[in-house]
Amino acid sequence: MTDTISVGAYLATRLAQLGSPHLFGLPGDFNLSLLDEMLTVDGVEWVGTANELNAAYAADGYARVRRGIGAVVTTFGVGELSAINGVAGSFAEDVPVVQITGMPSTAAQRDGALVHHSLVDGNFEHFVRAYEQVTAASIVLKTHTAPADIDRILLTALTESKPVYIGVPSDVAVARVSAANLREPLAAFTSDSRQLLRFAEALRAAVYSVPRVGVLVGPRVHRASLEPIIRSLADAPGVYIATQSGSKAILDESHPASVGTYLGAHTRVDAARRTIDDAPLLILAGTIMSDLLTGFFTHRFDPDRAVELGLTWARIGETTFFGVHLGDSLRIVNEVLQDARLDPAPPISLTWPAPSSPAQAPVATPGTVAAAPATLAADATLTDASATAEVAIAAEPLVHESFWRGVQSFIAPNTIVVAEAGTAFFGAIDLTLPDNCDLLGQPIWSSIGFTLPATLGACIAEPSKRTVLLIGDGSAQLTVQELASILHRGLTPVIFVLNNGGYTIERAIQSPSAVYQDVTPWNFTALPAAFGAADRAVTRSVRTESELTDALALATRTTDKLVLIEVILPPLDSPRLLRLLGEGLSAANAPVGAAAAAVNATDDALSSIVYSEN
Amino acid sequence: MTDTISVGAYLATRLAQLGSPHLFGLPGDFNLSLLDEMLTVDGVEWVGTANELNAAYAADGYARVRRGIGAVVTTFGVGELSAINGVAGSFAEDVPVVQITGMPSTAAQRDGALVHHSLVDGNFEHFVRAYEQVTAASIVLKTHTAPADIDRILLTALTESKPVYIGVPSDVAVARVSAANLREPLAAFTSDSRQLLRFAEALRAAVYSVPRVGVLVGPRVHRASLEPIIRSLADAPGVYIATQSGSKAILDESHPASVGTYLGAHTRVDAARRTIDDAPLLILAGTIMSDLLTGFFTHRFDPDRAVELGLTWARIGETTFFGVHLGDSLRIVNEVLQDARLDPAPPISLTWPAPSSPAQAPVATPGTVAAAPATLAADATLTDASATAEVAIAAEPLVHESFWRGVQSFIAPNTIVVAEAGTAFFGAIDLTLPDNCDLLGQPIWSSIGFTLPATLGACIAEPSKRTVLLIGDGSAQLTVQELASILHRGLTPVIFVLNNGGYTIERAIQSPSAVYQDVTPWNFTALPAAFGAADRAVTRSVRTESELTDALALATRTTDKLVLIEVILPPLDSPRLLRLLGEGLSAANAPVGAAAAAVNATDDALSSIVYSEN
Repeated sequence: MTDTISVGAYLATRLAQLGSPHLFGLPGDFNLSLLDEMLTVDGVEWVGTANELNAAYAADGYARVRRGIGAVVTTFGVGELSAINGVAGSFAEDVPVVQITGMPSTAAQRDGALVHHSLVDGNFEHFVRAYEQVTAASIVLKTHTAPADIDRILLTALTESKPVYIGVPSDVAVARVSAANLREPLAAFTSDSRQLLRFAEALRAAVYSVPRVGVLVGPRVHRASLEPIIRSLADAPGVYIATQSGSKAILDESHPASVGTYLGAHTRVDAARRTIDDAPLLILAGTIMSDLLTGFFTHRFDPDRAVELGLTWARIGETTFFGVHLGDSLRIVNEVLQDARLDPAPPISLTWPAPSSPAQAPVATPGTVAAAPATLAADATLTDASATAEVAIAAEPLVHESFWRGVQSFIAPNTIVVAEAGTAFFGAIDLTLPDNCDLLGQPIWSSIGFTLPATLGACIAEPSKRTVLLIGDGSAQLTVQELASILHRGLTPVIFVLNNGGYTIERAIQSPSAVYQDVTPWNFTALPAAFGAADRAVTRSVRTESELTDALALATRTTDKLVLIEVILPPLDSPRLLRLLGEGLSAANAPVGAAAAAVNATDDALSSIVYSEN
Repeated sequence: MTDTISVGAYLATRLAQLGSPHLFGLPGDFNLSLLDEMLTVDGVEWVGTANELNAAYAADGYARVRRGIGAVVTTFGVGELSAINGVAGSFAEDVPVVQITGMPSTAAQRDGALVHHSLVDGNFEHFVRAYEQVTAASIVLKTHTAPADIDRILLTALTESKPVYIGVPSDVAVARVSAANLREPLAAFTSDSRQLLRFAEALRAAVYSVPRVGVLVGPRVHRASLEPIIRSLADAPGVYIATQSGSKAILDESHPASVGTYLGAHTRVDAARRTIDDAPLLILAGTIMSDLLTGFFTHRFDPDRAVELGLTWARIGETTFFGVHLGDSLRIVNEVLQDARLDPAPPISLTWPAPSSPAQAPVATPGTVAAAPATLAADATLTDASATAEVAIAAEPLVHESFWRGVQSFIAPNTIVVAEAGTAFFGAIDLTLPDNCDLLGQPIWSSIGFTLPATLGACIAEPSKRTVLLIGDGSAQLTVQELASILHRGLTPVIFVLNNGGYTIERAIQSPSAVYQDVTPWNFTALPAAFGAADRAVTRSVRTESELTDALALATRTTDKLVLIEVILPPLDSPRLLRLLGEGLSAANAPVGAAAAAVNATDDALSSIVYSEN
């Protein structure tokens, strides 16, 4: 081979080939050469973020929307450790983020040099060791094996849909290696062909004679970009399709086969719950049976008797087929069920009130006046005291029920909804999402602050869709600086800040008036100006239904600027699901039995409440 | 024992006894019971921060100022991993921070429950394993051994001046244990008495007949609160005392024995450098021989021939005395040198220009007009265009040289100076600090963003001193939300934001115009209003020397509010030391030889530049 390329450029070329030409991160003393090399590659683009945790969150959001790789580039020690919580979240939520660390030179590491950004103990392995705990694979590159190691590590990320770690010493970043492998782009491994045939045969036998099939679709189907198969499967007769909250938007929820989001006993409509719990044959496709995804283990089906499709294996009852990958197993499920021609199953009525028919609201707020006065111009500055005075009498203060009804009316097809853990996510799960939407959130990792940087990543990943962020005031404070990056890049998401004066989700769990539940009161609508981008945003603060209506109208017609809507909500009000799940969270955090128990006592009653899998 | 106490309260009591009653952190699903228990203890106070990394930074700043323990309380997974970079910094910089994690219950862990905030693999050890890499000791508590384990872990933090990790399952947090041990507060271990005698004898022999002694005082002396011994030692005849930058303020720099900060070849005054490099007997007290502390290994003394005082050992030439702790060894050094009655050493003239005598400036800016026009009211709003127009002709734009001269004039005795890695810290090292000041910074870990939360910790730790923060615009963006905590707690630091449009320190190292060197342009003076606390701050943006002079006067007389001064500086100007050290950083990051070298070549020339220890 005569063609050579620097290791940094090799890595960046691979990322670009995989549809991930955007690099999120910060420069630092040990990654400048690496960045210079990576940025020589055509199409590769730097997305500087305000800090490294935010870079990891942004790359995660980007990878979710692109259904592919997201890349973070940080410096050694200080940078990479700041990002590790974001990467751990990618692990928990099956998002293939590549953490790339620029390291001190091979010679410095070999000799144990006492350089800054290290623990000055001559040991350069501490941080890759930490990353081993939260990644599927990790490597510190050496020049002569760099191409093979980069390819192997990226294949692991693709195949397992998990984050990986690549450390690049500064001398290795600029060293030249063969470019030969780059002629063939990488692709995730596919299934073992013999095992796939065995699985197909066994599945046909399992489907034979069942009257009806329930399919529970989990987050891994979302990550693997298998929505088209789900849409096809939904058209097969006799099939009901429910989603887990982590993959809620995978199917148009108005489709007759859709029964919405399954959450065990907390499923919105009981008839929908029964299509899963009582399914004659249940197929678990890329599901995760964790606390928040199962309504705190209130599912009533037996996973051991189901057909389960894992990322790299499938199982029918007690028989596991290793090497059968999710894309293939799901394709076979679709073929088998299309062929089976089961009797059509009657559609399940999902009773969430449509925004245009408030009479259907299951819990009407007494005295609610939903319609805004016609005299109020839609673009009036609603925070202006004199303007709001006129409508104060006619308008009810917003509560979660009325707020989410407004959001439901606002969400159009082709929207990326990003919902923060806590009130925002639990509210969003109860939305009925129209066609071609996406929902990003972290029902497993639940790291508050995730969604604001994830919105940056989402907007860059898919500029042709509008991104709508729903985030609480406490959560927004963790990562607020990334709003500046969003603004200065000219991105135009709609951001709802649900301002309820603190950590409402934690108040729902325990000690609602404890001092640690408070957060400092900010003037959220002043943030774009402080971030130097007043001209790139329009802002509103809304307290009433009519103000919300007007702000939503403003957001709909403002497509060239970011729209920030602060929504003032009562501190102790919360969406339906948060109230229900708060009980489970409360039990998990505060074992009532244990509190009263003697030293050393274990509380079996608690464990059965919190995570029994019956 | 009939007295019992909950494990959470036991831990908080220990912290309060150690002078660390403030708990920094955030609530989360698995630490609410723990927090409720800890906050039952008299005097224990919650300091909620906006995110967990900031909590760790704040606890570090608090511990540095108190010369004791700092405590962080987070939730499992998402919280603790966000804090890990801050705790690693505490390790690198010898600060005893206690990371306390509220964990899922013992039963949930035992059974591998798939709870949120975990990697949903049933393994609860990932994060304590990550923390093992950056702490001196770590433990996940079990109820029956909790008191002994808490005491043992805290003793390690105290004795080794390093961070430790304590995981507290939610059931253990509320379980009751014996309170008997609490009657006796913990204290760091002291020296092995036999070894101490041997060391004293050997030291007397080493000092015998030397004409003069140089003492280089490192960061560990600062952490161990041994300033009084250094002050006493400074009065012994024949002794010169230099500091490393991490402990710069340990001695009044106007003391005749002080030769300021030693930085190898980059030491400000060559005569000062020689007092260390050419010392007939050199004593290294708590020093760290890392790149930035040695002027990139340009020290010319031989550490192997020196007397070295480590934290728990001492060494004289080739003989090491284990079990001799720094407080004791330094006390003996003082006794021996007081007894030795060496000939007095002549004071070294340190030539940094005093602010009142600009003629002494080594690099005078041509045409500088230092004095502000008398007609300009000191409290006029200098950002107002009409007001500034009058002085624009008379006032030179600020550069680093004039800015730091102004800072020098502003720093009064009893000031805590907090200086961010980069331009701010390198500028601050060249200040001459008056009596009873403290300097906080991270010359080893150098994690940008550290100082803003550290300022929160410093203000809480020592409210009777004024805290002055110097931070760059890029660095401020990483952790800016903690400004809200500082404001809403009514704290009154003076904050200089050195706004030079990006990462100037990285520009000094490599690729100054690369896209990754830019940060988004903020309106820093608008931040207090956006954080909901306009009435708790006064702000100025200054571009000229006269504007700076007025802003400094405003800061001096405004003691009841936070003062935020944005200082506009040229993007490529930098303090003296940054220019010098930037060369070393550049060599470390971009091995010129390696860039041109063939695959697999090692670059011995580089390694000798970057970290040779000759």
